[in-house]
Amino acid sequence: MISAGIYGASGYMGGEALRILSEHPEVEVVWATSRSGKEAEYFHRNLYRSGINLIKPEHATPCDAVFVALPTGNAMSLAQGVLDHGGKLIDLGSDFRLRDREAWERVYGRPHLNWALAEEAVYGIPELHREEIRSARIVANPGCFSSAVILGLAPLLEAGWIEPGCIAVDGLSGTAGAGAELDISMHHPEIGNNLVPYNVVDHRHTYEMEQELGLLSSARVRIHFTPIYAPITRGILAICHCFPTREAGRPELLELFSAFYADQPFIQVFDMPADTDAAWQFRPYPWVSSVSGSNYCQIGFDVDRQRNRIVLFSVLDSIGKGGAHAGVQNMNLMFGLDEHLGLERRGMHPY
Amino acid sequence: MISAGIYGASGYMGGEALRILSEHPEVEVVWATSRSGKEAEYFHRNLYRSGINLIKPEHATPCDAVFVALPTGNAMSLAQGVLDHGGKLIDLGSDFRLRDREAWERVYGRPHLNWALAEEAVYGIPELHREEIRSARIVANPGCFSSAVILGLAPLLEAGWIEPGCIAVDGLSGTAGAGAELDISMHHPEIGNNLVPYNVVDHRHTYEMEQELGLLSSARVRIHFTPIYAPITRGILAICHCFPTREAGRPELLELFSAFYADQPFIQVFDMPADTDAAWQFRPYPWVSSVSGSNYCQIGFDVDRQRNRIVLFSVLDSIGKGGAHAGVQNMNLMFGLDEHLGLERRGMHPY
Amino acid sequence: MISAGIYGASGYMGGEALRILSEHPEVEVVWATSRSGKEAEYFHRNLYRSGINLIKPEHATPCDAVFVALPTGNAMSLAQGVLDHGGKLIDLGSDFRLRDREAWERVYGRPHLNWALAEEAVYGIPELHREEIRSARIVANPGCFSSAVILGLAPLLEAGWIEPGCIAVDGLSGTAGAGAELDISMHHPEIGNNLVPYNVVDHRHTYEMEQELGLLSSARVRIHFTPIYAPITRGILAICHCFPTREAGRPELLELFSAFYADQPFIQVFDMPADTDAAWQFRPYPWVSSVSGSNYCQIGFDVDRQRNRIVLFSVLDSIGKGGAHAGVQNMNLMFGLDEHLGLERRGMHPY
Amino acid sequence: MISAGIYGASGYMGGEALRILSEHPEVEVVWATSRSGKEAEYFHRNLYRSGINLIKPEHATPCDAVFVALPTGNAMSLAQGVLDHGGKLIDLGSDFRLRDREAWERVYGRPHLNWALAEEAVYGIPELHREEIRSARIVANPGCFSSAVILGLAPLLEAGWIEPGCIAVDGLSGTAGAGAELDISMHHPEIGNNLVPYNVVDHRHTYEMEQELGLLSSARVRIHFTPIYAPITRGILAICHCFPTREAGRPELLELFSAFYADQPFIQVFDMPADTDAAWQFRPYPWVSSVSGSNYCQIGFDVDRQRNRIVLFSVLDSIGKGGAHAGVQNMNLMFGLDEHLGLERRGMHPY
Repeated sequence: MISAGIYGASGYMGGEALRILSEHPEVEVVWATSRSGKEAEYFHRNLYRSGINLIKPEHATPCDAVFVALPTGNAMSLAQGVLDHGGKLIDLGSDFRLRDREAWERVYGRPHLNWALAEEAVYGIPELHREEIRSARIVANPGCFSSAVILGLAPLLEAGWIEPGCIAVDGLSGTAGAGAELDISMHHPEIGNNLVPYNVVDHRHTYEMEQELGLLSSARVRIHFTPIYAPITRGILAICHCFPTREAGRPELLELFSAFYADQPFIQVFDMPADTDAAWQFRPYPWVSSVSGSNYCQIGFDVDRQRNRIVLFSVLDSIGKGGAHAGVQNMNLMFGLDEHLGLERRGMHPY
Repeated sequence: MISAGIYGASGYMGGEALRILSEHPEVEVVWATSRSGKEAEYFHRNLYRSGINLIKPEHATPCDAVFVALPTGNAMSLAQGVLDHGGKLIDLGSDFRLRDREAWERVYGRPHLNWALAEEAVYGIPELHREEIRSARIVANPGCFSSAVILGLAPLLEAGWIEPGCIAVDGLSGTAGAGAELDISMHHPEIGNNLVPYNVVDHRHTYEMEQELGLLSSARVRIHFTPIYAPITRGILAICHCFPTREAGRPELLELFSAFYADQPFIQVFDMPADTDAAWQFRPYPWVSSVSGSNYCQIGFDVDRQRNRIVLFSVLDSIGKGGAHAGVQNMNLMFGLDEHLGLERRGMHPY
Repeated sequence: MISAGIYGASGYMGGEALRILSEHPEVEVVWATSRSGKEAEYFHRNLYRSGINLIKPEHATPCDAVFVALPTGNAMSLAQGVLDHGGKLIDLGSDFRLRDREAWERVYGRPHLNWALAEEAVYGIPELHREEIRSARIVANPGCFSSAVILGLAPLLEAGWIEPGCIAVDGLSGTAGAGAELDISMHHPEIGNNLVPYNVVDHRHTYEMEQELGLLSSARVRIHFTPIYAPITRGILAICHCFPTREAGRPELLELFSAFYADQPFIQVFDMPADTDAAWQFRPYPWVSSVSGSNYCQIGFDVDRQRNRIVLFSVLDSIGKGGAHAGVQNMNLMFGLDEHLGLERRGMHPY
Repeated sequence: MISAGIYGASGYMGGEALRILSEHPEVEVVWATSRSGKEAEYFHRNLYRSGINLIKPEHATPCDAVFVALPTGNAMSLAQGVLDHGGKLIDLGSDFRLRDREAWERVYGRPHLNWALAEEAVYGIPELHREEIRSARIVANPGCFSSAVILGLAPLLEAGWIEPGCIAVDGLSGTAGAGAELDISMHHPEIGNNLVPYNVVDHRHTYEMEQELGLLSSARVRIHFTPIYAPITRGILAICHCFPTREAGRPELLELFSAFYADQPFIQVFDMPADTDAAWQFRPYPWVSSVSGSNYCQIGFDVDRQRNRIVLFSVLDSIGKGGAHAGVQNMNLMFGLDEHLGLERRGMHPY
């Protein structure tokens, strides 16, 4: 059994980590923190009578795997202590995601307190960095938008089939992605029938996307990214507009993606044919509702031959494959467990 | 391993049965049916690449456990054949729920084709009929509203603490409860910001409620039941207005309910105190979102001393504890398995 | 032209008053207040470039009609000043709604500062008090739930056709009814797919309902009222369970209601027949979406002969007929204008 | 008074036309059609007791203004008859929108039956074609997406400030845009928490956009357009990614847009500054909820200097400014009325 601790379990991301780690057959959650020290069910009614009391952070004890679901700036303070006690750290936040210190400090508006560990950390997308994750002491779990966009675009950029310098991406996000802090734009009367653009240029996740996709591309990658909140709770739909550098229809793309993701259990390349039944003309494109509460990412696309564009859709749950579930996948790898453990369950239908 | 078959897997109830049985450690799903014979992912994108092909009903083969998620009238035709081949049957529909033939035939507007089996069938609420379910060949899984209302009111009626003849109940239902058939009242532009009363008097489930609660009460039980669709997908909130026959505050009721459900793993009596923080004044009452995709039922209540009323809330997932999950709980009992198998997972937060 | 001022225009109720008064042909809005003194579009983007600057309350000047959309306790401080300057006051809040001082002070948890004016104030339901409103200096606009319930039950109680002492009512409310203040239960990730009971017994509006319906009934009226927030933005559906004292089917009830509301332009008694088409079985019952943004109240009902119950549905917009629009209807009466002015527009479909 | 008729009043677009024309001070609706011949309230409960009976199309009589809200192919059959009787025609459908016959016939998959009238028709965006509309006999009302995108991009393309050949646009649409016909992708359990891409390349509206924007640009315009249904009912948010050909920040763009739309009463260029309060960082961008039920289009944008991109947002109501309301604006122009008549009302907040 692996002993696990979770910093920040009163939030949505930490609460989801708590839920799935509690049900993980090889993990014992020994503590989870909240500043208030209230029981878990105070924040997460789904965990009613789970018997978990949230402790104050200062009472955390050493354990094998430490998940950090705290605002930017906390993980970099905690990390060394975790390692010193022989623990491994999965940061669900943003402290260790960038390789360029100057960029990190500008984007997050503060000095980094432990850059040596940022350099040591592995970016936590198993589909791209599985071997490094296996031997990592620190994994920087990607941002939710970043996971969706990187997983969607990786095959195209590695193959050099699209212009790396001009990719326009809209990221539609459920409101869970905004976190548990109250905010007027998340107040139901405001967003219940609405769509809310925010941080519409130079969003922080853009830097992760460009960094990771740049590793796969021969030329500099530029992502024109704009996020929008939609009135759904969980999940992200990334819509990526790409401009092909060579002729390729949907069949060739399906081949490319299927090969790239052949051995990746949680990536599903959506190859459903357009149906003869007009009512199902949308069938070839994945739905964000299908992956709710799961570690799956579904990817689909189509080609506009007339105007020379590929439009690609990538869906995942912002606190599932885009968050806590991916963190558990990383933990499984770091501790030599079966990568699927605790993550088998499919999304729900309907959701 | 138990071999299982599912009739009607293209619908929401059958699809949910397929999802959770596929992940059940002691079950092998050998077939699931759909009239169209298309693969499961055609209807349920969450089951993409699950490898399950839906067969036509006529190709069904004998197996240990047969789940029927078909419209009224089908299970009663299929049941004898299942039993003759040594199988056990869990009917997720309404063919075997009533004990009174005349009532059944009037309510469902047709003659019953196999009343002997209806008399043999056990009503599938384990919290009330666990021992009979263990030895049953046929279990009649309750209607979703019925589960919520019966579980909520059972302790009060058994104890004789409320008037049995005057209980007013509003049943708020998510749209998944309406099924996959298209209907103008389920068209998003109509219901997306709306509340839709339907079958507002003499709803079919009323008869199940009165039957089962009548077994616990010394006098005739009368449920004044009205269902309303709300723009949520899964889940039911039953609001029950009861009139006490004796003095009892919330603490006494909590004691009564806690004792009644002491050994029932999936029933959670909500005893959260009202918080001093006004923002959390709603804390004592359960939320339907908390039990989504789970086999849990959460129950809470309050007392109006001034006007002498108990208001009780019971929440569950209409195709979870109010449907397919309860069916699996029944199957576990019928086959001598641990009652929790395949049903451990909690609801999600946020949902 | 009538000069009008609005206290509290940054909130939803005051913002709606501002919107419809700005479009009223016989009204000039001379000021509207907000503590922040920001322009109206800061809070209400629909009023972008309306040219309205919100002033601080201390800069308010005398005018003919003063609307107060402030938290409890403010109107009773302001009222005398308004009257002294020859103005008339429409309180959209709760300061003047109850006739019983002891009850008011207990329910609102504070001493009343100007009970003489509370005694003078007329309860603002034109359908019951039109003549008094015409000559009133102060109108106490009803609570949103109260409007729906009182309008729904008035004909039955006046006619003595139901038991006055046992009426169970669930009030489903859109989130606009909760106001613009942030609250965890209105945070989209919490309520987006949820139903939230609150103040489930002894809700403040109960006292208004019992007071006004008591005036129509020969015996004491007791309303067993429970409110629930649903994930819709505007509107209220009141579901009233009543127990008849005499035989009456839907046709007799339709006659009773049609006579009672014969000359009431904004009350629509829903007499649509159940359709032969099963898909439209819900047709006889009103939909809350239909009255969004309007001053209409739609009422429908059905009778359960078997169990002797009337279930009645009453829908209105919580800040329309249940709020600011009703306030304008009252203003029209108080100033001798055509009652319809500025209120003609129907609800939207779809909404 | 202008006599008006509406073909197709049982649908959402025709129903909205019926609603606002009924309230128009200079219009008398003399008929509205539906194949079923049922009363309007059967389809549109907001029009309960409006006294309007829908007639069968074959009973339509000549009148001054004829609105056609029918599927493609009907208006081109009806148009000549309307003109022959001295009427003017506003086609809310797609029969007269394209100037290129070959393109029309390919896109709509059928021969055009009256191309002379298509050549005569004026494309109904008053902000671009006001004078021609004043003297037109036939106006082709734009598609809802087209209105949002054309109004958003026109100033940039006319000024030559962006690359005309590479504009990526996501069109988020409420479900009202899908119409009243039942469809699995509009079934609430499927879309209630979902986002549904459809017709993701080569959407029909693309041709209108490229045609109209091409008139303003010196080079060929190419729109890479992808529509997505979101779980809101009314409204469209178009997100346009443009690549600047010259240096220009948000202030210069605001100047450009303000000048372009200086005399356009229904276009609002959103110049709200980013607030110092972080909670309002989204303030500079328009919200689709603000224009619900109105004839307003709100436009906002931002500039990514680092990556050289303009992101532009354009919002309108798909059956308001993107449909029936724009049709009434066109009618006002065609009949020499004040352009604002019947269209003054603002959107709602909250919506």
